Amino acid sequence: MKIIIDAYGGDYSPIEMIKGSITAVNSIDDVEIIITGDKEQIENLLKENGYTGDRISVYHAPETISCEESPTMAIRKKKESSLVAGLNLLKENDEIVAMISAGSTGAVLAGGLFIVGRINGVKRPALAPFLPTMYEDKKTLLIDCGANVDCKPEYLQQFAVMGSIYVKSMRGIENPKVALLSNGIEDTKGNDQIHKAFEILKNTKEINFVGNIEGRDMFTGEVDVVVSDGFTGNVAMKAAEGTINVFTSVLKQEIKGGGLFAKLGYLLLKKPLKRLKKRINYTEVGGSPFVGLNKILIKSHGSSKANTIYSCVLQAVEIHKSNYIEKMKEGIEKSSIIEEK
Amino acid sequence: MKIIIDAYGGDYSPIEMIKGSITAVNSIDDVEIIITGDKEQIENLLKENGYTGDRISVYHAPETISCEESPTMAIRKKKESSLVAGLNLLKENDEIVAMISAGSTGAVLAGGLFIVGRINGVKRPALAPFLPTMYEDKKTLLIDCGANVDCKPEYLQQFAVMGSIYVKSMRGIENPKVALLSNGIEDTKGNDQIHKAFEILKNTKEINFVGNIEGRDMFTGEVDVVVSDGFTGNVAMKAAEGTINVFTSVLKQEIKGGGLFAKLGYLLLKKPLKRLKKRINYTEVGGSPFVGLNKILIKSHGSSKANTIYSCVLQAVEIHKSNYIEKMKEGIEKSSIIEEK
Repeated sequence: MKIIIDAYGGDYSPIEMIKGSITAVNSIDDVEIIITGDKEQIENLLKENGYTGDRISVYHAPETISCEESPTMAIRKKKESSLVAGLNLLKENDEIVAMISAGSTGAVLAGGLFIVGRINGVKRPALAPFLPTMYEDKKTLLIDCGANVDCKPEYLQQFAVMGSIYVKSMRGIENPKVALLSNGIEDTKGNDQIHKAFEILKNTKEINFVGNIEGRDMFTGEVDVVVSDGFTGNVAMKAAEGTINVFTSVLKQEIKGGGLFAKLGYLLLKKPLKRLKKRINYTEVGGSPFVGLNKILIKSHGSSKANTIYSCVLQAVEIHKSNYIEKMKEGIEKSSIIEEK
Repeated sequence: MKIIIDAYGGDYSPIEMIKGSITAVNSIDDVEIIITGDKEQIENLLKENGYTGDRISVYHAPETISCEESPTMAIRKKKESSLVAGLNLLKENDEIVAMISAGSTGAVLAGGLFIVGRINGVKRPALAPFLPTMYEDKKTLLIDCGANVDCKPEYLQQFAVMGSIYVKSMRGIENPKVALLSNGIEDTKGNDQIHKAFEILKNTKEINFVGNIEGRDMFTGEVDVVVSDGFTGNVAMKAAEGTINVFTSVLKQEIKGGGLFAKLGYLLLKKPLKRLKKRINYTEVGGSPFVGLNKILIKSHGSSKANTIYSCVLQAVEIHKSNYIEKMKEGIEKSSIIEEK
């Protein structure tokens, strides 16, 4: 199974992408990685990091796209960039099943949309990461976490359908519970957009709609899919991320100021705290798949290290093995989505 | 200084409101509390909890308003409710400076708006709590966290102005840094509403606008005021709250499963963990003042216990002493807010 990794983009590129690729081929039997980037630079880094095998190849695409550039302009003009070249490879080769990029979100999304293309009938593809919850064996899908900042209620309806198909495919849940992200659980809560979406979702027979959910309950594992526009979803996900950072930082401060007992306590708790970090850190579960495209495209966190890249490869393998693209094509074709007004 | 406490509403009413009132008069010298609720019930509870002083009085208003009722209907019809009776007292008596309620958010907001009334020139009052940050001595104001789910960009502009005045008054910060909550820090990030608000804020001379801020950076203490519509602000704040719950719950699970060493470590870390909880728990800093009204009205968390109610009294005293209502009146009168379209 061939997977492309974009060498550039992200705070720790290209070195962490190289290391992540090496871990992936060393840990997963049937994976081959194609790294897009500057051939000489990447091959040197592979050598420096001790890789001499033949399951990583490099495709020469030396240009880079920064977060400051206009995504659509960059996609159109920078054909030799590691992102655009990779997306073209992904589109044109049936044996390549997925691509992973930690680059500019805007450029990855624009490239996914304009180069890889949407599944027939999909209005707006959406970024859909699994969020960690209180329960180790439960994850909740957030769709959309940032691809579509302005959404018509009909888009939210299709996010609900796509999210349900994805969760069913990935986690084998027969009738995933779908909730709408709002400012309260009562049916009357929400802004104008949410009120409209609520009415539509209530009448969408393809999904198991359970009503509104608050930001507080996104992580309790009580629902399988949380539907949101990309703006609100992004703010919510990053608020959670920021809270984890504060929690960790304040905990460190308090341990530091807590004297010898606290330091000893910390040493004894090191293992549970490490497991805690692993469980609630969503970069550990991979990246955000761009759901609704013809191929698997995963946006990895901008601060991805080797371990995140490796998690993304695992995630891509899992998505591919679940046969999700075919299921999504089928599901979208069958779904009675209300026509766009 | 007289402060009203609504005996009803909230998950632990009325008992925790009574206990909080007793703590308040026992701890703060110049405070008198008027509790609105069923006179007999409240007076019995005061006795049962050992209060025999004369700085807590009860105003008989036995009706209650539930979260399921239509807020505007309830405000209009339930004149004998602890909330409506309290708001009328607050409005009509100059010597009463503030009211605290843990009741239905919708009803508190509707009552504040229609009974207490807005400061001249205020378009939309907003809920504005201080969020905890990484730094113990820094707090960031979030305005609006839930009062106005649908906002015109001009409302966001006025939230920025009101937030700046409030922070200046409460924390003595001369030129508070104001940021707009968005899905990225770049000027081009945001949905349609945010783009419009960004342009207006950039040109508002009364404030020190520093650009967009992500959900991730709301808690770093780098800005003083975060401006948002009430829908997004509410989702973000509750996402943070939910994350703290997950963090705490998973930590407990890991300690429990971590054997003897982990348990010993936990005992040694108990004090720092308690301080951590106190520092990041926003109910410890009080409630959300409804900024822009003619009087001080504080919405306390629905799950408020005695300690939260006491914190709200402290907060009300601090707000009153800062002379914020006068400053807000002056500031709003002077501000060159763009006229509503």
